[in-house]
Amino acid sequence: MDLLERLGLGGRRVLLLHHDDLGLSHAQNGAYQALGFPTGSVMVPGAWAGAVRGEDLGVHLTLTSEWPAPRMRPLTGGESLRDEAGYFPASLEALWQRARAEEVERELKAQIEAASRLFRPTHLDAHQGAVLRPDLAEVYLRLAQAYRLPPLLPQSLEGLGVPPLFLPDLERLLAQAPFPRVRLLDPYGLPPEERLGFYLGLAALPPGLYQLLHHSALPTPEGRALPDWRTREADYFALAHPEVRRILAEFHPLTWGAIREAL
Amino acid sequence: MDLLERLGLGGRRVLLLHHDDLGLSHAQNGAYQALGFPTGSVMVPGAWAGAVRGEDLGVHLTLTSEWPAPRMRPLTGGESLRDEAGYFPASLEALWQRARAEEVERELKAQIEAASRLFRPTHLDAHQGAVLRPDLAEVYLRLAQAYRLPPLLPQSLEGLGVPPLFLPDLERLLAQAPFPRVRLLDPYGLPPEERLGFYLGLAALPPGLYQLLHHSALPTPEGRALPDWRTREADYFALAHPEVRRILAEFHPLTWGAIREAL
Repeated sequence: MDLLERLGLGGRRVLLLHHDDLGLSHAQNGAYQALGFPTGSVMVPGAWAGAVRGEDLGVHLTLTSEWPAPRMRPLTGGESLRDEAGYFPASLEALWQRARAEEVERELKAQIEAASRLFRPTHLDAHQGAVLRPDLAEVYLRLAQAYRLPPLLPQSLEGLGVPPLFLPDLERLLAQAPFPRVRLLDPYGLPPEERLGFYLGLAALPPGLYQLLHHSALPTPEGRALPDWRTREADYFALAHPEVRRILAEFHPLTWGAIREAL
Repeated sequence: MDLLERLGLGGRRVLLLHHDDLGLSHAQNGAYQALGFPTGSVMVPGAWAGAVRGEDLGVHLTLTSEWPAPRMRPLTGGESLRDEAGYFPASLEALWQRARAEEVERELKAQIEAASRLFRPTHLDAHQGAVLRPDLAEVYLRLAQAYRLPPLLPQSLEGLGVPPLFLPDLERLLAQAPFPRVRLLDPYGLPPEERLGFYLGLAALPPGLYQLLHHSALPTPEGRALPDWRTREADYFALAHPEVRRILAEFHPLTWGAIREAL
């Protein structure tokens, strides 16, 4: 039976409004507090992970660290997960070329267990989709079952930049996984000046289960030290806009905690 | 022969103006850039370590992490160096009760080697004086010799809060160490309203080799998230003050790089 049917939400427009990259910076955490939406996920290797307080927080499993600063290191010793200065690789390509699945599994377990010391996780997802290499996706699904934490699984792999070589195995894994799949809405790559239009356009969506990913960060000097600060601030300002909030309020709000209880 | 004599600075007032805790936060790094003094040391486990650029940077060896955020983890796997969530212990007491010297040595080596991938270190010192336990002081001195990085060694152990039990062994180690010792000037514990007076009072110092420790940080939301932000901002504002700068300019400026070359 479909998750929405089971939740009594069949035929409705249901929204997981999800704040990515919490714990990465003070600016990211500050936006989470300021916006007041409960759902997001925390980068446990981030310096600010210990300062996130909220009601519906997952583990934003991290295997890459893409800026010179703030930069993150693995919690475990796997040599295939670190560059010469000991940081996570800066790109998915570098990660996928070198990462050994058993070292990934050890690291992701350590992140989940460390997260459980900081807050009560409700779900899993992965920074930059780092677990899309099929053998890492198997690890991701195995850990989701082992820890009883529903994983973010997209309804469709189109438009996610997945290497074509990975697609057949990934499709098979997703089809077999005993977890619901969500329609992803992700404005990250849009120019900031189109951000408000993107959010206002959500009014036209048909019924279904959506996860809207946003990367809101406060407009502070620290927040603006990240090279992609413009897209983060664009999310923050759009989600503070009263007309966007009116449109979001037309969706039924869902949490990962509720999904977890329904499984 | 005395270091100052060898440098041709005998009888002068010589100053190492030292910025502690670089790499810890964006605010700390930003103050370093804004003030323009070359000397400081970098916390390699800090999220912002990779963003410090400067002429006279040391390794601020780190074994404790005293705030909930930003929080730091060891680079190596030593169980005696981490709490249950995997972070460095929050206090010197917790560290000194549990830390195994061989795990400390492995961790500090990793920090020095990771630092060398980020910049060219000129010296060593230790966050919160974490190496004052005598067996850890031996590790510190051994690494200083092995890596040819002069370590910060105080002229006097008085007023540093060293447990009395440690003093006899520490005094012996310091007396034997083949490195110069400096007179420490550290306003960290003074109330912020006394900070300007402290700096202006430096005008009265007699000749000698001084290291003035400061913790300057920018007055930003991220900087003010640290519980001790007031003392950091007090240093920043005092060191930007023209009268303080005039008094500091009366000292002969020294760098750790110059000390390293003279050894």
